Amino acid sequence: MGRRGEHSKDQLAAMALDAAVELLETEGADKLTTRAVAARIGYTVGSLYFLFRNRDDLVLQVNERTLEELEADLHAALGCCADPEEALLAMGRGYIAYARAHPARWRLVFEFQPGDEDAVPTSLLARIDALFALVAARLVELVGDEGDAGLLRRTAQTLWSGVHGIAVLSVSGKVNAGGEVAPEALMEDLVRCYLRGLRKG
Amino acid sequence: MGRRGEHSKDQLAAMALDAAVELLETEGADKLTTRAVAARIGYTVGSLYFLFRNRDDLVLQVNERTLEELEADLHAALGCCADPEEALLAMGRGYIAYARAHPARWRLVFEFQPGDEDAVPTSLLARIDALFALVAARLVELVGDEGDAGLLRRTAQTLWSGVHGIAVLSVSGKVNAGGEVAPEALMEDLVRCYLRGLRKG
Repeated sequence: MGRRGEHSKDQLAAMALDAAVELLETEGADKLTTRAVAARIGYTVGSLYFLFRNRDDLVLQVNERTLEELEADLHAALGCCADPEEALLAMGRGYIAYARAHPARWRLVFEFQPGDEDAVPTSLLARIDALFALVAARLVELVGDEGDAGLLRRTAQTLWSGVHGIAVLSVSGKVNAGGEVAPEALMEDLVRCYLRGLRKG
Repeated sequence: MGRRGEHSKDQLAAMALDAAVELLETEGADKLTTRAVAARIGYTVGSLYFLFRNRDDLVLQVNERTLEELEADLHAALGCCADPEEALLAMGRGYIAYARAHPARWRLVFEFQPGDEDAVPTSLLARIDALFALVAARLVELVGDEGDAGLLRRTAQTLWSGVHGIAVLSVSGKVNAGGEVAPEALMEDLVRCYLRGLRKG
């Protein structure tokens, strides 16, 4: 193998990332290695070295693509409603729907711990931050906390960490311990009740 | 090796589970295998077969012990305060503290997915349920929803899933994406605001 030259660098990068996502979804995170990705597209692992330094780097790139897609889904969900509370609920449903549709990809974003040397890169943290910003934008409309951006971000972080908890227990099959309520319904309880508390704070 | 006869079955079970927890905490979940546990206590893997059918079974037993300890910690935390809101906050702090003190063990409880054949056993689900029950008992005191046990359990599940989300993002180092607020402070925001919303529902 080793088809260097057949594809441009950009083509190769796109092919490799597509193959990595497919591997993760069909075979699971354990099987996601640079070697397996290379084999899937008919290249040697050495010829992909310029794309992925090591497995951590591969996983981080896959995770960035996942967050990119998730963010696009949430943007689309937000489009449903002018009312900020309804928009946040739609976003919560979109978040849970994405997690359930792509459990392996979604879990890898939040469960993956790079080795000590490779901290979570700032580009990935920026994507998580962008999700909180989507929430914060609706909270401003609801509670008018424009004066204090720090407090607003903290409020968004609190609320969305809560929604995340419901999604994570749902995807790992543990939310139904002690009840048969759909995660979407728990999310709606959480968001509505939290926002009510916020308005009456 | 194979020191069969030196220890009673109960002694061996206790030794093996202690060794498994130690392995998990020092070497990580990847290294937690029946073979490694056996080696650590000087037995052959075959002589532990009556304790752990396979790796899934080993992990599930380790997870049950983790939940048992977590529950004991939360019980102790609850003892702090007669006021139900303060007791729930103490429980939230205890939950986050346990997760941060034993990240490998805590994550394995929630991240582990047994193979298709071995569903999550009812004894483990019962332990998760017991955590929700601790929360529900304080909610009764707060909102007096004694008439509807189903609704109460659902409310406890919603609130604690939210706290779980904060803990999970904190342990995976992702809660600080977009802010430097301590997870305990986010938990306090969530619990106080949710309870305020609940009382004013």
